[in-house]
Amino acid sequence: MNKFWSSAVSRTEPYVPGEQIEMDGLLKLNTNENPYPPSPEVTEAIQAELKRKLHRYPSPSVDSLRKKIANYYHLDSEQVFVGNGSDEVLAFSFMAFFEPGKTIRFPSISYSFYPVYAKLFDIPYEEIPLNRDFSLAMDKFFQTDGGVIFPNPNAPTSLYLDLKHITDIIENNPNRVVIIDEAYIDFAKESAVGLVNKYENLLVVQTMSKSRSLAGLRVGFALGHPELIEALNRVKNSFNSYTLDRLAIAGAEAAMMDVNYFNETTRKVTNTREWVAEDLKKIGFSLIPSDTNFLFVQHYKMDAFDIYAKLKEQNVLVRHFNKAPIDNYLRITIGTDDDMTLLLSKLNSFIHTKSVVRH
Amino acid sequence: MNKFWSSAVSRTEPYVPGEQIEMDGLLKLNTNENPYPPSPEVTEAIQAELKRKLHRYPSPSVDSLRKKIANYYHLDSEQVFVGNGSDEVLAFSFMAFFEPGKTIRFPSISYSFYPVYAKLFDIPYEEIPLNRDFSLAMDKFFQTDGGVIFPNPNAPTSLYLDLKHITDIIENNPNRVVIIDEAYIDFAKESAVGLVNKYENLLVVQTMSKSRSLAGLRVGFALGHPELIEALNRVKNSFNSYTLDRLAIAGAEAAMMDVNYFNETTRKVTNTREWVAEDLKKIGFSLIPSDTNFLFVQHYKMDAFDIYAKLKEQNVLVRHFNKAPIDNYLRITIGTDDDMTLLLSKLNSFIHTKSVVRH
Repeated sequence: MNKFWSSAVSRTEPYVPGEQIEMDGLLKLNTNENPYPPSPEVTEAIQAELKRKLHRYPSPSVDSLRKKIANYYHLDSEQVFVGNGSDEVLAFSFMAFFEPGKTIRFPSISYSFYPVYAKLFDIPYEEIPLNRDFSLAMDKFFQTDGGVIFPNPNAPTSLYLDLKHITDIIENNPNRVVIIDEAYIDFAKESAVGLVNKYENLLVVQTMSKSRSLAGLRVGFALGHPELIEALNRVKNSFNSYTLDRLAIAGAEAAMMDVNYFNETTRKVTNTREWVAEDLKKIGFSLIPSDTNFLFVQHYKMDAFDIYAKLKEQNVLVRHFNKAPIDNYLRITIGTDDDMTLLLSKLNSFIHTKSVVRH
Repeated sequence: MNKFWSSAVSRTEPYVPGEQIEMDGLLKLNTNENPYPPSPEVTEAIQAELKRKLHRYPSPSVDSLRKKIANYYHLDSEQVFVGNGSDEVLAFSFMAFFEPGKTIRFPSISYSFYPVYAKLFDIPYEEIPLNRDFSLAMDKFFQTDGGVIFPNPNAPTSLYLDLKHITDIIENNPNRVVIIDEAYIDFAKESAVGLVNKYENLLVVQTMSKSRSLAGLRVGFALGHPELIEALNRVKNSFNSYTLDRLAIAGAEAAMMDVNYFNETTRKVTNTREWVAEDLKKIGFSLIPSDTNFLFVQHYKMDAFDIYAKLKEQNVLVRHFNKAPIDNYLRITIGTDDDMTLLLSKLNSFIHTKSVVRH
């Protein structure tokens, strides 16, 4: 502790992202990126913007991108907030809707950034243990003191919660904001976006980093009642007038417009997920049913950390969380068919399964 | 006030940036952007990065860019923090070094984002009036309760404070952080960066939006003792792991490397500034001596707001602040020689100066 640090710094326990190693020949299945590049129209839009005015500030209100997102979801622009990745959108949301002194709730196994935000902003929280099948302990999220946040599908479990249960949580927190973090929703069933017009206490957060192949561009957004969006804008405009640069805005707009490419790559990822799940079962893995672009798996015999380490030796990165009760699980991002064939051949090289009977 | 808003939202009084109007034929001299495009090497670097991995996350630690900034200033990478524009760097700095309950000080006429940050983060502040010549009331910045922040050169006054006085303020706040916001320093005399190795309570913040022609790319940085930089990293990594996208990182690195282009465009701007200052005096303006890429001017006869409005009618935007004691001043960004010739011809069309004797 340095004497110049504020109490906020002293409280922090920073988030540690998955290993970001840039190395030729590395198969990177550890941070849930899309294996497909963004739409060619994204590249073209950025090329065009690059010829324009990089020495001029971008739009502070980012109206053109908000309009395109609104159109996609049949909402109004005033129901859309955009930010520098959904992580920034979530940070602003913690500031805008959660309060020091009022305890919020989120699942104990969930996006590990939530307790990090809570510590930074001095917001008390309770982590609600999952049920044994990793489903949410529903009634624990009713009538909360400070609000609720959880991912749907949940991460890293990959499990989807249906809209009936989401609705129950929203209706049972009439005076608090419920934030649904839909980073992986495009690989799943229905989004909660359809509930935004009905519930003024619902905020849905999404990202372009996963299904729209733009992790490298940093664009996320939130959808909600105009008064929630105004709160986010007030925080953002008290923090940084321009959080999205000109190239990110141009690329994100093109990504929202190219619906065919989005549908095609998303379907490819989910198709790959299904056959990989089956093949993993055959060599002794059990899996949570996944509605995401990753699989959350454990092996009946071999320790998860050992598998992680063996794969890393062979230039394959997957993610291991050193935290009970998931410390014997691995989170494996879905790559291309070729990526996953390579993964399976690596696994087969050290997992000996002639006697596998259960999965 | 919506019932879902946090007390932080309720406290905010968001910053209002200069008008960002995109319109053909508009001469935009209101937000201190560089009139020259970025170095051709910036465009090339972004083109090259665009062919790489936009679907992969950028580096969370941004080591390569930090190294290039460190090299430029003969510092170590651990003395460099990078962020999404200097506005974000300043926001993180308020969180990292200033404390609710401890009053910070900044000049009353200064970057108008400082009180906005202070309100958001609930940090009490005192605005210290400038002396009549717009210089800093030095001793009022000694032995502060919570710390000090000011721009050098100051904005919007354009006035530079020499390093002897900066040193006095740093030495007279031995237990508090002094933040020097050097957004315009490249158009001025010596930077305080040379003091970073000597004073562990000094943080120097700079931006690539002005002298490096990258307002549209959102890159700023801070230079200071490694423990101050660690505090900023702790806050940033509790907020958003990746604040700079791949294209911004690539472009910013190229901008730091092309020193010749930087020197040439900076010299062009300061040369233009000097002749424009002389010509403005000839038509009845008085000016604060400028060490920035803008001029802070008032006219001996015509009201500043009227000049602003007349120019706007003719598609020329300059900035007027509706705040005493600077409400009769205009801030005029330095454009190209052609831009400024056009500005002067517009001014001459409605300012009748045959009887001007003073300036």
